[in-house]
Order: sequence, then C-alpha cells, then structure tokens
Amino acid sequence: MQRLEVTLAERSYPILIGPGLLGSRELLAAHAASAQLLVVTDQTVARLWLPRLEEGLAGREFARCVIPDGEEQKTLETAMGVIDALVAAHVHRDGMILALGGGVVGDVAGFAAASYQRGIGFIQLPTTLLAQVDSSVGGKTGVNHPGGKNLIGAFHQPRAVIADTDTLSTLPDRELRAGFAEVVKAALVADAAFFAWLEAHAGAVLAREPEALAHAIRRACEIKAAIVARDEREQGPRALLNLGHTFGHAIEAGAGYGRVLHGEAVATGLVLAAEFSARSGRLPAAEAARVRALILRAGLPADPPRIGRARMQELMGMDKKVAGGRLRLVLLDAIGGAAATADYPEDALGALLEERMGT
Amino acid sequence: MQRLEVTLAERSYPILIGPGLLGSRELLAAHAASAQLLVVTDQTVARLWLPRLEEGLAGREFARCVIPDGEEQKTLETAMGVIDALVAAHVHRDGMILALGGGVVGDVAGFAAASYQRGIGFIQLPTTLLAQVDSSVGGKTGVNHPGGKNLIGAFHQPRAVIADTDTLSTLPDRELRAGFAEVVKAALVADAAFFAWLEAHAGAVLAREPEALAHAIRRACEIKAAIVARDEREQGPRALLNLGHTFGHAIEAGAGYGRVLHGEAVATGLVLAAEFSARSGRLPAAEAARVRALILRAGLPADPPRIGRARMQELMGMDKKVAGGRLRLVLLDAIGGAAATADYPEDALGALLEERMGT
Repeated sequence: MQRLEVTLAERSYPILIGPGLLGSRELLAAHAASAQLLVVTDQTVARLWLPRLEEGLAGREFARCVIPDGEEQKTLETAMGVIDALVAAHVHRDGMILALGGGVVGDVAGFAAASYQRGIGFIQLPTTLLAQVDSSVGGKTGVNHPGGKNLIGAFHQPRAVIADTDTLSTLPDRELRAGFAEVVKAALVADAAFFAWLEAHAGAVLAREPEALAHAIRRACEIKAAIVARDEREQGPRALLNLGHTFGHAIEAGAGYGRVLHGEAVATGLVLAAEFSARSGRLPAAEAARVRALILRAGLPADPPRIGRARMQELMGMDKKVAGGRLRLVLLDAIGGAAATADYPEDALGALLEERMGT
Repeated sequence: MQRLEVTLAERSYPILIGPGLLGSRELLAAHAASAQLLVVTDQTVARLWLPRLEEGLAGREFARCVIPDGEEQKTLETAMGVIDALVAAHVHRDGMILALGGGVVGDVAGFAAASYQRGIGFIQLPTTLLAQVDSSVGGKTGVNHPGGKNLIGAFHQPRAVIADTDTLSTLPDRELRAGFAEVVKAALVADAAFFAWLEAHAGAVLAREPEALAHAIRRACEIKAAIVARDEREQGPRALLNLGHTFGHAIEAGAGYGRVLHGEAVATGLVLAAEFSARSGRLPAAEAARVRALILRAGLPADPPRIGRARMQELMGMDKKVAGGRLRLVLLDAIGGAAATADYPEDALGALLEERMGT
C-alpha cells in the first residue's frame, strides 16, 4: 500500500493506494471510525465490489443506498435520495458516508455529505481509474443542473481516499482509457518527466500491468494533491487542473450527455488546448504533436464531434470559468507548464474550432 | 453606524448596524462590489423595503428573486428556485446574492449561495430583529427536510451583514418580541450584566426606542460574533448558542410549524432550560425565576403547549444535537454561563416535561 497526504491544515487527509484495501477491516476501522455509516454505491459496483467492502465492514452495522448507474444520475434528485437515506437511518452529525464507485457516486455522495446537517464526514472509495486519479481527490462535489454541469455543489474534503486497485480489474477498457486522459492532464499541467514516462508506458498502463498502473495513479494523485494543498477552493493555481475541461465540457454537452465519456471529452479538450496553444505561439508545434500522439496511442479521440464552431463557442461561453464576461482558458506554455489566461487571439480560436468542428 | 467584525481569517466580515443603510450607495458599492447581483427577498419585504434597497443600488443592474412569505417556504424547492434564478441570469462565480429579509430569506438564499458553483458570495441584509441579532451572523444556512429542521444546509459565511435598523419600524410586534428571545438567549449564554440591562430596558427595547434597540442588537451581535470566531463549525462552544433550541425545535414541531414563531418557541425553551437547570441543582432557583420573569415581561410564552411529555421527548430525540445516541442539552450554571452536557438526571427532565406538558 502507498500512502500520500493532502495537506489542508485541519482538513488534511490520506490517499491510500493498493490492492485488497476494500476488504481490510483494520483500514476501515481506522478511517471509517464512526458508529453510523451509510454506504452509497451504484448498481454495477454494488454487484461487483460491495461484497468485498462488506468483508472490510464485517461485524459492523451500516445502511446502504444504491443509485442507478450512469452520468444522468448526477442530479439533485439523486443527492436528495442519499439525504433521505441518511434521515431514514437517523444518522447524526458524527455519522459518515462511504462512497463506493466512480465519479458520479463520489460527486453525488460527497454533495449529500456536504449538505446533510451542514456537513458530515465521508470517505471516497473510488473504483474507476478516473475517480482514483482525479475526481475522488480534492473535495469537489456536486451535481448537474439543466443549465449546466456541476452548477450545484460544494467544496467538501473527504476524510480519506482509499483506492483499491483491484477494482480496476472489472473496469471496461473504454472507461480505463477515459481515466487515462486525466492522468495525461496531470502530467501536462505539472510534470514533463511524467509525460515522457506516460509516452513510454501507455501500453503497460492500459494493459493494466500492476506496477505501471500503480505508478500512474500515484503520480497523478501526487500532482493533484500538491495543487489542491496550495489552492483548495480554486482561486488560483487549481484552475490549471481544468486544462482541457472548458473544451471538454462543451464537447460533452454538444454531443449530448452520455454519448461521450467525460474522460474522452477531456482527451479531445487536451488536444485542442495544446494545438491552440501552438497556434497562438505559446507552445512549440512539436509539443502539441506529442499530445495528439499520446491521446491517439491511448485509443482516445483526438478530434471533436463536428457540432460546429458557433455551437461550440456558445457552449463554452456558458462555462462557469468565465470571469467578468471574458472567457479564461487554460493553455500550455510547455509540456508540464500550464497557465490560465484571457489573453489569447480569439480569431485564431474561432478558426481552429471551425477547422475541427465545421461552421 | 456601528461596526463589528466577525474574525475568521480569510472569511472575516463586518457587521454594520444603523439607520438608513439599505439606501446608501457608497456602502453597497463597497460591500456588494460584484458586477452581477441577485437580490433575494420575500413578498412582504419586497413591498416594504425593496424600494429603499433600489435607491442603494441606483444605476446598477441586478436580478431579483421574490419568494413567497412564511416559514413553510424554507425548503429545498425554494432554494433551487434561487439557483434557477442565478442560472437564468448567467451569474458567474464572482457574482453575489443580496439576501433582504428575515431568517427564512437569509437561510434559503445563503444555502443557494453556498451551493451555486460550489459557493458564491452573499450579503445578509436582515430586516427582522431575529435576523439582525442572530440568524444573519455566523454563516449557518439551510432548509428544512420533511424529517427535521435545517437537515439540509451548509456553513457559508456572508461577505457582510448590513442591518438597517429602519426596517424594524415595519416589523409586527409579535415578531419583534420573538427576536427579543434570541437577545435574551445571547445574554444568558455569555453576559450576566447584559441580562440585567435587559431586565431594566426590556420595555424600551420593545417600544423600539432607537438607542435601546441599537444597544441590544449590538451587544447580541458582539456575543455571537465572539463565539463564532472561536468555533465556526459548531464543534465546541458554538453549541452553547443552541440554549433553549433543543426544547424550542421540539415545541415548534409539536405545535405544528407556523403556529408558534421560532423565537417564541426559543423563549419557552429558555425557560425550560433554566428551570431544568435549577431542578438538577446547577442553577439557583431564583435565577431561573428571573429568566421566566423576563420572558413573561417581554410578552413571550413561558410555558409550552400541552403536547405531552412522550411526544416532546420523541421530538427532542430526533434533534440533530444527539451525539453517540445520548441527547446533549445546553444548560445554565449561572445567568451568563451555559454548558453543553449529557450529564443530567433524565427522570427529572421527564417529570418537568410532564408537569408542563401533560403525559
């Protein structure tokens, strides 16, 4: 087992990574010490991994709340269903939620934990690569609103992140690749050497070779933990972790939610961010080519659906990273060096989007 | 204008108290500096005081969200209506809510501000005595759930509290008295001299004599601000501010929401807490008698509705201040000295409730 720390004063917490963790009674006794537990998971993960967690919780009482599968469940209604389960189980302020699943389960259960009795503890038990390397770390919780993604939510840090790497054995290939996109993002934002390592080891990671996978997860978590420790509430450097996401969210919305996985849209967004960085003179063209090549090598989409430049820009304008009316983008000055800026040539952006997506 | 400070590191904010503040352009320009504002208020306050706020915002654009009047509006649906208004107005992360009204408006609008885009700024513009002395200060926001009061919410500090004392001129007497109960509570928790001052000046405060009213508001806010500064998230001393509230919440629920005002239920709760403190040997009986006398002098109910001991205890058991299965109560060791404890004679509590409320 590897152990990292997210350092946030009294809200600090560990990230534990390794095989067999869900079934460890000592680990769960140490971190989920509350007498009142609610396990939140989805139908697929309940079938595959709840039995393992039940081993880890053997002899302890806990309530369950199983939500349906899918991104379209990331709604206020689902979060309120979790709160109803907390009320029904008479969970007190010192009770705790265990969120067993991917990003949707973690985001929804985390928001329920943030909002129940003005905040109770929760533990992330991520079971997808995307959740293990990105969404379970850093305390962003929330649900979608018909007007946009993640419009309702809270910053609420978990008490621990326990990433049992065994759970990746049942993850579909497509979801593994989608999670890989967030690993690439972490490298692009902060660590050129890690990007080079990914170029050399993408095949091993995607073949689920345990050592390669463990290294990728650990390094991505380290990068995220360091940035979150500097800027918990995304007032500054944490915004860099949105590299590719302004494009990505618009692609998700434009394609229709559920057609494209979040990680796939981010992959395409990373390529667009790199290529636009090259066009606007920030990044050598050869570096942008490396980004495209790695995304393609991972079996991820480098090019966006042809929903048209106009629609794409409209969807990007609705993005909440707009500040004072001017859209800020995260762009690359180097592989391993990102910057959030509103200083870029808008015409060149329009031209690039038109080339890639039609008018 | 008087100015106090709630000291919470980077979340510190001022409390401004005085006449004419809502109409002050400079004050609103200084504290509500965002280019995107949503004013949230209720129908009655919109009619009485929105015109004054519009003077203060003259020349600036802002959106409005007017909710119906009444405690029964303190629901998730109402909060989501505020979020819908934020989405419709395309409010960004640097936008801000102005909450103009009493406790319900502040709690609902504050929870919407806490949850929109994981937290935007808001300013409390309290227009009732209860909100000016208690609910607008300290960052407790939230809504009721069918299973209990305030079960859904967040700690989210306002950027400022601007209490225009002119607004109290239109407050019904019954609501003025209800707010007075929270002033008495503040004195009981922390300041015997202030309690004695209230004994001497209750008549002047309730006759709305400006100097007496201003002193009562200021001192209650100072007490609350000092406690919140020590314990923002109610892990320790802040729980003392719940004096009378465990009884009070149960009385509100038992009487049927809306039949008894929150402040009226708290007034009765303060008397019960004092008299139970006396019965269990913590507080001299003469001190409990002073509490009852002041509550009665203020025209507030000293005795609870006769809903029966059994029902009352059931309702108290559902209260979220239960920890580890044992109900903690805030009791008095002196006027001006409260303690949260689970160490009290349960039989004596049952006997007192039976005397006052029937079996």
